[in-house]
Amino acid sequence: MSAPTTNLTRIGLAGLAVMGQNLALNIAEKGFPISVYNRTTSKVDETVERAKKEGSLPLFGFHDPESFVQSIQKPRVIIMLVKAGAPVDETIKTLSVYMEKGDCIIDGGNEWYENTERREKAMAELGLLYLGMGVSGGEEGARRGPSLMPGGSFEAYKNIEDILLKVAAQVPDSGPCVTYIGKGGSGNFVKMVHNGIEYGDMQLIAEAYDVLKSVGKLSNDELHHAFSEWNKGELLSFLIEITADIFTIKDDKGDGYLVDKVLDKTGMKGTGKWTVQQAAELSVAAPTIESSLDARFLSGLKEERVEAAKTFKAGGVGDILTDQVIDKQKLIDDVRQALYASKICSYAQGMNLLRAKSAEKGWGLKLGELARIWKGGCIIRAVFLDRIKKAYDRNSDLANLLVDPEFAKEIIDRQSAWRRVVTLAINSGISTPGMSASLAYFDSYRRERLPANLVQAQRDYFGAHTYERTDVSGSFHTEWFKLAKQSKM
Amino acid sequence: MSAPTTNLTRIGLAGLAVMGQNLALNIAEKGFPISVYNRTTSKVDETVERAKKEGSLPLFGFHDPESFVQSIQKPRVIIMLVKAGAPVDETIKTLSVYMEKGDCIIDGGNEWYENTERREKAMAELGLLYLGMGVSGGEEGARRGPSLMPGGSFEAYKNIEDILLKVAAQVPDSGPCVTYIGKGGSGNFVKMVHNGIEYGDMQLIAEAYDVLKSVGKLSNDELHHAFSEWNKGELLSFLIEITADIFTIKDDKGDGYLVDKVLDKTGMKGTGKWTVQQAAELSVAAPTIESSLDARFLSGLKEERVEAAKTFKAGGVGDILTDQVIDKQKLIDDVRQALYASKICSYAQGMNLLRAKSAEKGWGLKLGELARIWKGGCIIRAVFLDRIKKAYDRNSDLANLLVDPEFAKEIIDRQSAWRRVVTLAINSGISTPGMSASLAYFDSYRRERLPANLVQAQRDYFGAHTYERTDVSGSFHTEWFKLAKQSKM
Repeated sequence: MSAPTTNLTRIGLAGLAVMGQNLALNIAEKGFPISVYNRTTSKVDETVERAKKEGSLPLFGFHDPESFVQSIQKPRVIIMLVKAGAPVDETIKTLSVYMEKGDCIIDGGNEWYENTERREKAMAELGLLYLGMGVSGGEEGARRGPSLMPGGSFEAYKNIEDILLKVAAQVPDSGPCVTYIGKGGSGNFVKMVHNGIEYGDMQLIAEAYDVLKSVGKLSNDELHHAFSEWNKGELLSFLIEITADIFTIKDDKGDGYLVDKVLDKTGMKGTGKWTVQQAAELSVAAPTIESSLDARFLSGLKEERVEAAKTFKAGGVGDILTDQVIDKQKLIDDVRQALYASKICSYAQGMNLLRAKSAEKGWGLKLGELARIWKGGCIIRAVFLDRIKKAYDRNSDLANLLVDPEFAKEIIDRQSAWRRVVTLAINSGISTPGMSASLAYFDSYRRERLPANLVQAQRDYFGAHTYERTDVSGSFHTEWFKLAKQSKM
Repeated sequence: MSAPTTNLTRIGLAGLAVMGQNLALNIAEKGFPISVYNRTTSKVDETVERAKKEGSLPLFGFHDPESFVQSIQKPRVIIMLVKAGAPVDETIKTLSVYMEKGDCIIDGGNEWYENTERREKAMAELGLLYLGMGVSGGEEGARRGPSLMPGGSFEAYKNIEDILLKVAAQVPDSGPCVTYIGKGGSGNFVKMVHNGIEYGDMQLIAEAYDVLKSVGKLSNDELHHAFSEWNKGELLSFLIEITADIFTIKDDKGDGYLVDKVLDKTGMKGTGKWTVQQAAELSVAAPTIESSLDARFLSGLKEERVEAAKTFKAGGVGDILTDQVIDKQKLIDDVRQALYASKICSYAQGMNLLRAKSAEKGWGLKLGELARIWKGGCIIRAVFLDRIKKAYDRNSDLANLLVDPEFAKEIIDRQSAWRRVVTLAINSGISTPGMSASLAYFDSYRRERLPANLVQAQRDYFGAHTYERTDVSGSFHTEWFKLAKQSKM
């Protein structure tokens, strides 16, 4: 069905850094003739070479934007994979002059969703269609089958649905990892929250590693085995798998393992930050994701940390305060449970953020369907996502993943181990910010009465902000200061 | 010096809700004849009545904007105390048509700093000066002496410095709680962070209350005594004082104490949210402040919490899991220390956020001076702020309050109690999100090596994001997948 009936190609791709090259090769490999273009033309030739090497794929390179655009059959579809922000605007400007009514541009980058909405409007004025499409899975995913989150013009989506269904990761029993997300910038927004969840997953895994290594004194070999075992059960996922791999890699520049030589300074791009800012904007508590962002910020202060460590070691606060004997196998089992329970909290936060935004924007996001398209291709792919999908299948109005009967049972079974790990870490002088934030989230969410009554009393005391009562409805104000003065007399 | 030499007044104030009325009366009481105006004119008459009642103060009411503006001596200064956002723009529009070159408008509300910068520019085009001035202290502070944070036109500040110095709260040995903050929206920004810190303080106090009440089983009377005692020492502050007061107030609608009848749902305005968003924007870890915002969000989900409590109680997860015998006096002492140590972390975050923004905007904020003007008048006023001021006096380049020698010593002395309280809360099934986030912040900041090496290895594995090494400088990339595959063979 995708064989070209003329000598025009079916689709175009502009922006040939690694992600763009790999996605273009993937599309060609699925039988869709593709035109490719890049401002720096050497990248075009490079991609054409790769297409030959990787199986004489139907991929055609162009050195100028006009012949690139004109090589594509109408209605034309061009995917851009360039840096978010100004480069996207420039690429649109370059290409759109040669495009015609009904043609479509797709931004496959990690773009801020409002930029996509602005561009969709501007394109519509030219008669062009626009999609913002989250692409997850890194270089490997782009080449072999990513998770795709297209949002924007439904008409445009329909024009290339056949391509996306083949290009996306294929998961047995649940199909291709792509679905039409919704209108406007919804595809970018969903990808943003996916990345925020990814931050949370990575932080929780790092904390599990830290407890096992720093408190449990596990060697890299033992860590490899622990993570490999975990990857056979409830934690089965891409990130656990690559973590197990990482502990096997020897340092090629010296003795020992490479992971021990990697500097403890973590980089970041914008999506984790945006997720935290949007959670605050929408009044959604997202402490696990916030803690993962903060951990990256603190990791960046390496020099300050080295100085602080000196100050506090001199004061008797060392890395590990405990001298208790640790049962390694028991600890591994506890940490697994703590990691899993924390992960449920993190996903609950991400999903609730998506629902809040969907309600605000009228996107009609289907949370179970999003869990389905994350089951393959993307960085957070995991067997766990199937459980989330099923939770929303059971109840699409589920207030919080925590109270789904299956997840609730899993948490109840794991809560003792969870508390043991977090308190062990605290008593050992190391921090598990993500796991403890998750536990506090759970303990707050399942608490009928929080101490917020005091906060509200304080607010009414100093700012006359009023309060509600537990027994009578209405809004009340009390002259706390006057009454307290009287009671003192 | 402030006696009117003509029949014109010295200053004007527009917006006569409680804050505006109180600030106007305060200014008049300090001997500065003031004109007041409000769109709803009954408020004008009300304010004039109050001025008579409260001591025949030199306050003059006006029912129309033109005569209001013209009643003020040149260069005119008008303080607005209206709702942030559109009402500010409307008030400016109403008043500015009657104002002349060199006149000044001051916004005393909790305005987003960028709005102030936009308005300052627009006013400058009309030849008018503009200040955004944070005013803290609630109604009582406005009337008796608030903490004032004016930012924007320095010329405008100089024109009314004499008024502000008298109107602000006066603190023995450290002077009036006002200083010129800096250019642009710096006054609003500093007030915003002040409020974020206030959120943190209130949350930490609520957690202290929760542990003492829920785990320690303290009565309201015992809570009153504990907080009253605390208010004699290192925690001496307005918020501890009013908390002690709150526990004395009996319910006028039934038996028992009012605080127990207050619904555990906390309201909020924009400043806490903005603080968290700005921290993310500026890569400053602010987990204590974030946790206080999240706690407010979770408090709002009262109905969901009631349901979740049922689900988990049925599964054996109740409010308090512990049956250990608690030594009340020891617990009170531990909680005091945990609260104090957490508070240091919270202020460290707020101060570092201010410094980061100051560097970005070139505001030249003096952190010690900000601590000084918060010592009186405002909601977070506390003896603690004097310690912060001294820390910056000792070293104005201090990287973090935690490593100031005095604060470091205080934390070292309290860290055991801090860990005891947080682990006790966790084992009791209640959450102390602010205290545990603070502890994790401390333990991360003072840690020479964090598990961020694993996160960076993961990022390089799936996204070729590269990493640095501990032993060699430079940026490295490893083909982790390939090497792991080889090592498996």
